[in-house]
Amino acid sequence: MRILGIDPGIAIVGFGFVDKVGSKVTPVQYGCIQTEAHTPEEDRLLHVYEGIVQLIDKYKPDAVAFEKLFFNRNVTTAMIVSQARGVMILAAVQKGLPVAEYTPLQVKQAIVGYGKAEKKQVQEMVRIYLHLKEIPKPDDVADALAVAICHAHSSTLNSKLKEVLGK
Amino acid sequence: MRILGIDPGIAIVGFGFVDKVGSKVTPVQYGCIQTEAHTPEEDRLLHVYEGIVQLIDKYKPDAVAFEKLFFNRNVTTAMIVSQARGVMILAAVQKGLPVAEYTPLQVKQAIVGYGKAEKKQVQEMVRIYLHLKEIPKPDDVADALAVAICHAHSSTLNSKLKEVLGK
Repeated sequence: MRILGIDPGIAIVGFGFVDKVGSKVTPVQYGCIQTEAHTPEEDRLLHVYEGIVQLIDKYKPDAVAFEKLFFNRNVTTAMIVSQARGVMILAAVQKGLPVAEYTPLQVKQAIVGYGKAEKKQVQEMVRIYLHLKEIPKPDDVADALAVAICHAHSSTLNSKLKEVLGK
Repeated sequence: MRILGIDPGIAIVGFGFVDKVGSKVTPVQYGCIQTEAHTPEEDRLLHVYEGIVQLIDKYKPDAVAFEKLFFNRNVTTAMIVSQARGVMILAAVQKGLPVAEYTPLQVKQAIVGYGKAEKKQVQEMVRIYLHLKEIPKPDDVADALAVAICHAHSSTLNSKLKEVLGK
C-alpha cells in the first residue's frame, strides 16, 4: 500500500510518499511544491493542484492523508490555506483515492507515542523510522512524511481490528 | 460581456450569469448548486467543482466574480467554505477566465450606493435592476446576482478610466 502524506499550505506544500508492506514502512519520494508570493491566488491554486495531480500520476498512491489544519487566531491565513487544501482534496477524489485527515495530536501520538511531543522529536523519529541520513527539509516535508506514517499505522490498526472482529 | 457571479458556500453555492452590453445588464441564468449534508467533504467539493465546470461550459462567461468571504468568529466554517471557494477558483482559472472578488461592502455600494444597506434592500435592488418579478430564492442566488452586477459596474468604470487615461 502506497500512501501520500500532505502538509497543506499555499507557499509550501510538503509531500511524502511511503510504501507500507506488512508492518514495514519505507520512503518512496518526498519534497515540496512551492508557489511564488506576489502572484495571483488563482495561479497559486492552479500550481498546487497541478503539482498534486502530477505527483499522483507519477507515484500512484492508494490513499492520501492530510494534516488537519489548526488555526485559532489568523482567520485570513486559515482561509488561504483552506482554499489550497480544497484543490488538493479535489485532485485526490478526482483520481478515486480515499482521503484521510489527522490532527497534529494524532500524528504526534502515532510517531512519538506522546501527543505533546516537540516538533523536533517528531522529525527525528521520522528520520529514524524511515532510515534517512538527515531530517528532510523544509519542516513541511518532514511533517508530510509524519502524516503518511501516521496513516500507515492507523490503517494497520484498522485492518487488525477488522480481522479480530471478523469484518 | 458575460459575467458569472458566485456566492461561495458548501451546502449552497449561489450563481448568477448576467450579460452586460453597454451600460445595460440583463440576467441570463441563475440558481444554486446544493450539496448534501452528512456526505464526505471530498464528495461535496467534487460536486461543487463539477457543477461550476458544467455551468462555465454551458453559459461561457468572460469573467467570474466572487463575493469575498468574511468571517470573524467561526474559523471552522471559514475553513470549510474556503475549501469550496478554492475548487471554484480552480474551475475558473482552468478555463482561462479572469477572477475578481468583492467584499460585501463593495457589493452593497455598487447596488444600493450605500455600504450599510440591509440585505433586503440589496435584494430588492437586484430584482428591480434585472427586471425580475420576484427576488430570486434562496438568498444565495440574489447575492450571486448582486456580485455579478457589482462586477459589471466596476468593469464599466475600469474601461471608462482606461479611455480617459488613454490606456
